[in-house]
Amino acid sequence: MPVGTLANVKTITPAQLKDTGAQMVLSNTYHLHLQPGEAIVAGGGGLHKFMGWNGPMLTDSGGFQVFSLSEMRKITEEGVTFRSPHDGQIINLTPEKSIEIQNILGADVIMAFDECPPYPATREEVETATARTYRWLERCIAAHQRTDQALFGIVQGGVYLDMRSSAASSLAAFDLPGYAIGGVSVGEPPELIHQIVEATAPLLPYHKPRYLMGVGTYQEMAIAIASGIDLFDCVIPTRWARHGTAMVQGERWNIKNAKFREDFTPLDETCPCYTCQNFSRAYLSHLVRCQEILAYTLLSIHNITELIRFTQKIRQSIINGTFATDFAIWLDTSNESKVLSAE
Amino acid sequence: MPVGTLANVKTITPAQLKDTGAQMVLSNTYHLHLQPGEAIVAGGGGLHKFMGWNGPMLTDSGGFQVFSLSEMRKITEEGVTFRSPHDGQIINLTPEKSIEIQNILGADVIMAFDECPPYPATREEVETATARTYRWLERCIAAHQRTDQALFGIVQGGVYLDMRSSAASSLAAFDLPGYAIGGVSVGEPPELIHQIVEATAPLLPYHKPRYLMGVGTYQEMAIAIASGIDLFDCVIPTRWARHGTAMVQGERWNIKNAKFREDFTPLDETCPCYTCQNFSRAYLSHLVRCQEILAYTLLSIHNITELIRFTQKIRQSIINGTFATDFAIWLDTSNESKVLSAE
Repeated sequence: MPVGTLANVKTITPAQLKDTGAQMVLSNTYHLHLQPGEAIVAGGGGLHKFMGWNGPMLTDSGGFQVFSLSEMRKITEEGVTFRSPHDGQIINLTPEKSIEIQNILGADVIMAFDECPPYPATREEVETATARTYRWLERCIAAHQRTDQALFGIVQGGVYLDMRSSAASSLAAFDLPGYAIGGVSVGEPPELIHQIVEATAPLLPYHKPRYLMGVGTYQEMAIAIASGIDLFDCVIPTRWARHGTAMVQGERWNIKNAKFREDFTPLDETCPCYTCQNFSRAYLSHLVRCQEILAYTLLSIHNITELIRFTQKIRQSIINGTFATDFAIWLDTSNESKVLSAE
Repeated sequence: MPVGTLANVKTITPAQLKDTGAQMVLSNTYHLHLQPGEAIVAGGGGLHKFMGWNGPMLTDSGGFQVFSLSEMRKITEEGVTFRSPHDGQIINLTPEKSIEIQNILGADVIMAFDECPPYPATREEVETATARTYRWLERCIAAHQRTDQALFGIVQGGVYLDMRSSAASSLAAFDLPGYAIGGVSVGEPPELIHQIVEATAPLLPYHKPRYLMGVGTYQEMAIAIASGIDLFDCVIPTRWARHGTAMVQGERWNIKNAKFREDFTPLDETCPCYTCQNFSRAYLSHLVRCQEILAYTLLSIHNITELIRFTQKIRQSIINGTFATDFAIWLDTSNESKVLSAE
């Protein structure tokens, strides 16, 4: 899922997004609650109609953003109180409130409100957060009002694999329509992400969608898919695009590099995206050097297409029974040169 | 003609531009000479292929930009010497050099290198510039190498109508494929633009394209068309879009205005553009408030479509023989409320 934080995937239109092959979009409860507010989104006919995306959508619960972005937060059993970085007002977010906002926003999949411990955190801190996330899930389930929205639970547990296993098993008992692994990609080394996913994903119901939150680089996706993960979200393709970075066949290129100035080939001759079909590396390099906004649009289109194609190829190789061999280079965690982590 | 200064119309793709109904695009010799340089544009197959625009294109000569943008310029009979604001290097631009660059860039229409006097300027200053522009045109014609590019001459003369008339008549004698009125919209009041156009356009050959440079608001286009003008260029639709301004049925709206926050209608229900077909004023207001780049894309698409539709309606009314009555409100220069000038 490309990320559409403020009810848009940055720099591209829904029509351009559809052409990348993306099927589902994530948007952020926390950000939309602050701007423009869920009442305005509902007034516009709900998130799909408001932002012009006719495909599936997911909203996160705001849990991750409250813990990573907000100032002056105070956590109690009831919920979280924090000061809005947008306008300074004091905001309370509880499991019930998060679900209410998500019911109003109207995405197809909504997420339980969780407590996401930082990295590093002590075993005791993570235990407290994981136990509270479980109790908050019970309250989310009770608060959820709409039968046309699927509520997913979130497994926490930090880097403590026994806690991850135990949380996964206890969440599976709720028989929810889908499950997520949260609290990863919060600063820990990629090897730990791999260990967490390998210890957790197989314990979640294999016939339900399994979602690894906040992850979306080549290797991390390949390894997670090998453990059974179906769904990802990541800002990397669009954020890197806005920094002038192209993702090409597993590599990361700074398109401002002098070698692209007179390179009149497309980014990737095998890529069907609008950017590769119409423009050269030299043109993209020119636009990035001039800080022309169109550069970010064209690179976002390409980067999203690139990552979607990567997952499409994995899907086909699974159908063919050749995943382990076709993607051996990505599944080999000793191959450090291929580990592309987020900034 | 929407303006594509650096080989792109800011914030929109050529595909989006085509959907606005735009037929022809302007790009800037001065800017492209500095970045990326005409050799790279030629290496990319010429301007059309480099920027992915398959329709007609025009390049200006750089004359206007040399006089309006550059620092430390020195004007002699030979040409202009100035310091590049991009990288500080000293650049010489002469009629021959401008034509050479434009021959290399490869637009369908290229412009003579002219001296554009500022406003205000004394009669003597304007006389000198106008006479030099005439001599430079002779050198441009001699230097022009490509038979597949049409070279247009430019009438100067400042706000001195007798000088405009005399320049128009002497240029007409060259039997060029098209003519432009330059040196307007340089700070003078709109009434003076109207007087200049009314005094000049009718003296240019009516069976050749007549182009009013740098103009493109509703009233100024309507009045110029009444005098025989066929072609315009203007940055207003895209520049205003990047400032959060929508052009709607002759009006100028600040889309951040509170009244749009919960207005779930499109900008213009009669507009066929992608923006009006898919998004509400409330959504656009949300994007502008959040400074999301997509806002500028969507407003650019609408604003260009709006101005193109305005000229399409004028064309149809001319065919119908109803122009003077249908556009009476725009042709009435005493109607100050309708005068939308550029920033």
